[in-house]
Amino acid sequence: MGWASLPARPGETPNLRGLGRGTMAHQVTFEPEGWVVSVPEGATVLDAAVAAGIAMETDCGGQGVCGRCVALVREGTVRPLDEARWQETAVGAARRVLSCQAVVVSDLVVEVPEDGRAAQQIAVLGSAEGVGEGGLRGATRLAMRVELELPPPTRDDSLNDLDRIRRGLRERGLEPVHADLRLLQCLPGVLRASGFRVSVALADTEAGWQLIDVLPLGAPGRAHGLAVDIGTTTVALQLVDLETGAVVAHGGERNAQVRFGDDVISRIVWSEQHGDGVSRLQAAVRETLGELIVQACHEAHVSPRDVIAASIAGNATMMSFLLGVETGPLRRDPHSPVAGDLPVFRACDLGLPIHPRAAVFGQAAVSGFVGADITAGVLATGMADSPELTLLVDVGTNGEIALGNNEWLVCCSCSAGPAFEGVGIEAGMHGGSGAIDRLAYDPQTDEFTYHVIGDAPPRGLCGTGFIDALATLFAARVIDRAGAYDPGFPSPRLRTRTYEPEFLLVLAGEREAPDDIALAQSDLDNLIRSKAAVHAGVSILLRRVGLQPPAIERILLAGAFGSNLPVEQAVAIGLLPDLPRERIHYVGNTSLQGALRALLSGEARRRASEIARRMTYIELSTDTAFMEEYMASMFLPHTDMARFPSVT
Amino acid sequence: MGWASLPARPGETPNLRGLGRGTMAHQVTFEPEGWVVSVPEGATVLDAAVAAGIAMETDCGGQGVCGRCVALVREGTVRPLDEARWQETAVGAARRVLSCQAVVVSDLVVEVPEDGRAAQQIAVLGSAEGVGEGGLRGATRLAMRVELELPPPTRDDSLNDLDRIRRGLRERGLEPVHADLRLLQCLPGVLRASGFRVSVALADTEAGWQLIDVLPLGAPGRAHGLAVDIGTTTVALQLVDLETGAVVAHGGERNAQVRFGDDVISRIVWSEQHGDGVSRLQAAVRETLGELIVQACHEAHVSPRDVIAASIAGNATMMSFLLGVETGPLRRDPHSPVAGDLPVFRACDLGLPIHPRAAVFGQAAVSGFVGADITAGVLATGMADSPELTLLVDVGTNGEIALGNNEWLVCCSCSAGPAFEGVGIEAGMHGGSGAIDRLAYDPQTDEFTYHVIGDAPPRGLCGTGFIDALATLFAARVIDRAGAYDPGFPSPRLRTRTYEPEFLLVLAGEREAPDDIALAQSDLDNLIRSKAAVHAGVSILLRRVGLQPPAIERILLAGAFGSNLPVEQAVAIGLLPDLPRERIHYVGNTSLQGALRALLSGEARRRASEIARRMTYIELSTDTAFMEEYMASMFLPHTDMARFPSVT
Repeated sequence: MGWASLPARPGETPNLRGLGRGTMAHQVTFEPEGWVVSVPEGATVLDAAVAAGIAMETDCGGQGVCGRCVALVREGTVRPLDEARWQETAVGAARRVLSCQAVVVSDLVVEVPEDGRAAQQIAVLGSAEGVGEGGLRGATRLAMRVELELPPPTRDDSLNDLDRIRRGLRERGLEPVHADLRLLQCLPGVLRASGFRVSVALADTEAGWQLIDVLPLGAPGRAHGLAVDIGTTTVALQLVDLETGAVVAHGGERNAQVRFGDDVISRIVWSEQHGDGVSRLQAAVRETLGELIVQACHEAHVSPRDVIAASIAGNATMMSFLLGVETGPLRRDPHSPVAGDLPVFRACDLGLPIHPRAAVFGQAAVSGFVGADITAGVLATGMADSPELTLLVDVGTNGEIALGNNEWLVCCSCSAGPAFEGVGIEAGMHGGSGAIDRLAYDPQTDEFTYHVIGDAPPRGLCGTGFIDALATLFAARVIDRAGAYDPGFPSPRLRTRTYEPEFLLVLAGEREAPDDIALAQSDLDNLIRSKAAVHAGVSILLRRVGLQPPAIERILLAGAFGSNLPVEQAVAIGLLPDLPRERIHYVGNTSLQGALRALLSGEARRRASEIARRMTYIELSTDTAFMEEYMASMFLPHTDMARFPSVT
Repeated sequence: MGWASLPARPGETPNLRGLGRGTMAHQVTFEPEGWVVSVPEGATVLDAAVAAGIAMETDCGGQGVCGRCVALVREGTVRPLDEARWQETAVGAARRVLSCQAVVVSDLVVEVPEDGRAAQQIAVLGSAEGVGEGGLRGATRLAMRVELELPPPTRDDSLNDLDRIRRGLRERGLEPVHADLRLLQCLPGVLRASGFRVSVALADTEAGWQLIDVLPLGAPGRAHGLAVDIGTTTVALQLVDLETGAVVAHGGERNAQVRFGDDVISRIVWSEQHGDGVSRLQAAVRETLGELIVQACHEAHVSPRDVIAASIAGNATMMSFLLGVETGPLRRDPHSPVAGDLPVFRACDLGLPIHPRAAVFGQAAVSGFVGADITAGVLATGMADSPELTLLVDVGTNGEIALGNNEWLVCCSCSAGPAFEGVGIEAGMHGGSGAIDRLAYDPQTDEFTYHVIGDAPPRGLCGTGFIDALATLFAARVIDRAGAYDPGFPSPRLRTRTYEPEFLLVLAGEREAPDDIALAQSDLDNLIRSKAAVHAGVSILLRRVGLQPPAIERILLAGAFGSNLPVEQAVAIGLLPDLPRERIHYVGNTSLQGALRALLSGEARRRASEIARRMTYIELSTDTAFMEEYMASMFLPHTDMARFPSVT
């Protein structure tokens, strides 16, 4: 049992994989976006695309079968992963290959044509500055360094230090420029020690350019920034070279706030019941962020002082706890958050272990339950710029749903619970090495096989694995439409332990570990409640705008499932409406992607703010039909089978 | 000996008098400015005018003789100080009286007509907003409170908290509005606890309105602000009710930095020779400021949390040390300061014991040696708006001189030393109670008499006393033109102690103290060096712009001498050019007056910045003629007696 010989599947280098994989060996530049990522030895072009936040089209799961994840290798060398599956065509000077089969063996320049992409998730880039030159080169970073060779003061030009710097920056079109006290304190010394030849770090804020630092020209270190998605359950982070736009390290970790409650409501309640509640929740997320930052900087050999910007997305509750803002009002009607557009903060105010004056940009929130993460997601997917009617379903612990196009946008929120992120499920784990992400059933042999991420023994299931397992167990009739194990199913792996039945995926002996890996009945119930909440949310949102599912031209499924999610299974369990599969795309962690875009482009930051203002929030919790829809969605795929004609 | 029976002289309630005089008894409102000050029982209208920063015309020194310090009492009651000197005329419903003779016995509304004023020092107010309604009422304070009764959020109006406040403020014409992290942290709680009825404190900054605080409507306490002049030797402060513009407390104290050096150069050198030099000098001035603030708040029963603004003037070195900015570049050619216009800081950044987010405005500097104090002085005197060619001489330890009118302005700086502030002179003291401020000589009887500020035994001499004593000793021929004691002068008070001759002003027995109060030869030499530096500065500045002294239409002598300075004596010792006396006016601490105006009026803040940009700095230290002029000025009144025809 096990697919050790099978090729890697997309998602093996997801954003959430733990760090510490050793040195990154090669840089892959993706065009036309110009994103650059570093990947380790042995990674495929598909791995690199996932790391870059580009969702590729893959039906076969990266097995070199479906032939959809095509990429054009323009510069550099790749080698076949499996000669038997290798397909290659020359397109001018480029090689057209399957990205899942192309192992990176040198630095590459790769173009991903439209037909290789899972969705037009990066359409927004088309309207951003400088696309195609590499990492949005020329776009207005959240923070940047500018080199200035200023004339030293003389009697005829005795202009003061700050205005001298301003004069130099004005010549580059950068004004107004502000300075805080700490900066003024170091200014005379640095200017004179450097002979007025300096590298000036600046933040793009709502009030103009804020001086972050002034260093002697030629001081070592390059300017870096962070893109961060603070999920209720998982915090994901990318460390980015601000000049090239290259993602030089990435990581993910469980949000240390989980110990105060699995979902936002339980954490808000906890914080209200404890005098220092907000502070403790703030400290917890700072701890997680701090660890991720230190690890990423260590891995990429970047000094934390060179990290001068951070762009952060997360739901309104996560953003509030990060800021240390009371969250009580978020859970009470009408769920007003403390602010829509946030001011650009300094890292020292938030306790982040980077440059103390680094610019911290928080995405704008729509309401207390539809936060910066969905704004970032709508930004990253470009749906606000497309005429196509698009449904974005971001399945996190807090499920957020947006519907609309370039003319209108509505959104809502539903509490999906953390099951898809592996919390509240005994065998759950995040999508790192050792996570089971697929379960297959062969009706001929009645055999079950599973696939594990990375070269490691199985340790548990990630979100993708849960959805795959639920779909597979249902297809194999191990469970019935209510999700209950069929005690009559003829398999020794189905057994009853303590009070409930469970299905054994891996026996302790099979993985050389003391415990079995099993899915208990209560685990399945949790998963079904989660998918039901999301589906009910989608249904009510559609009903509230007077549309039927077939009106949706595109469904973009986003979330940190730990591995690229198979669309078929998401429909099979009733998580998503039963639409033609070519309309449905898994687009990965769009919240993180949006944060990255905001980090790198001023146009993206402005658009994020516009998107938040444009979106109309629709409150579901007061809709009596929601509970009805939720109950009807508690079946596989749904009580009303007419809604899922393709699922048999 | 002593003038105990003589009436009080102007300056008995100067800005520099020590605090702790007990409760203020009455409020005096001055028109047309609308300034309001509180004064203790027994104060005269002239005392109140000095406290309000209004310099009155007084030739007799407030003895009720010259008849120039006229004021119209429009509302309230005054009583004669000395019936024998009382003059009163009815002007409509008002009483025209001599301010020096009118003791305040109730709250008053007083108009000071032009002929009662020492100078058109407040001309600038004519162009500021809202003059005449009381304390620049209606003018844009550096910080202010605005009461907002906001609609609580509903489902139809679920706008976030910050934008809800912004919407309320926009309706008052206040935008853009910014918030820092600390403010956001308290926002949801305060808004909900108060039912969205709040008092919002706002600071007027270069980037718009910054939220300082949000309090429930009706919370006790009124908004106050500070006007501060940080002198090299003396720090002066006024605590002001921001709503009415009333000065509710004032105080002055020796700058604790004096222990690191008497003048700016010696302190800069000290700071450069010690690793933590800047920090220690910063700590010293913070200590002085902190004590003054605590005392002023205590005296006026104002909570430091209600002090939401501070407007600070001082020379470039003093401002740099306050900010903790390295000062080395200030003493080296071309003396560039760190910044011209300073950003509005938060009090917590500067360690001031007021509201942590209080707005701190620093006047703009012209150069490293012509700082915010002269900008404030030019602002306060209105000379930049007048067609009259005006010379402003600000005699502090760092002497600063400005010349010009509404068409052009030049300025320079000379190190006068701290002698006029009573430092470096054995008998020196600041201008508080017990300071001798006048010395008189009766050639008939060969008797010397002195006058002491306040109802106290003599303790030393203040700046005014030094100038008076020097002029009197010279007139009595106790000293010769070189300032040397004439050993042949027939007085037992002239004696030689240790190495040098000295003149005994007060014997130990006369004042019931163990020591005599004497002026030693070296003290006189110090004073003469100080006056010579100022006179040389004036001469060179005039020469550099190609003018002769008679071209000057007005001389405004500013400085913290501790008492109103007699103009005649300032000319007699050669401190000022020998011009018709009606052109010369003592205008008090114009730096503090300018800081006060900037605190209360946005127009004044903008004008201060314009003035700093308009002024051309003229460097004297590299002018070889300066030393020549300085040496020639070391005589009384000058080597070239033709320059002082009126001094015999």
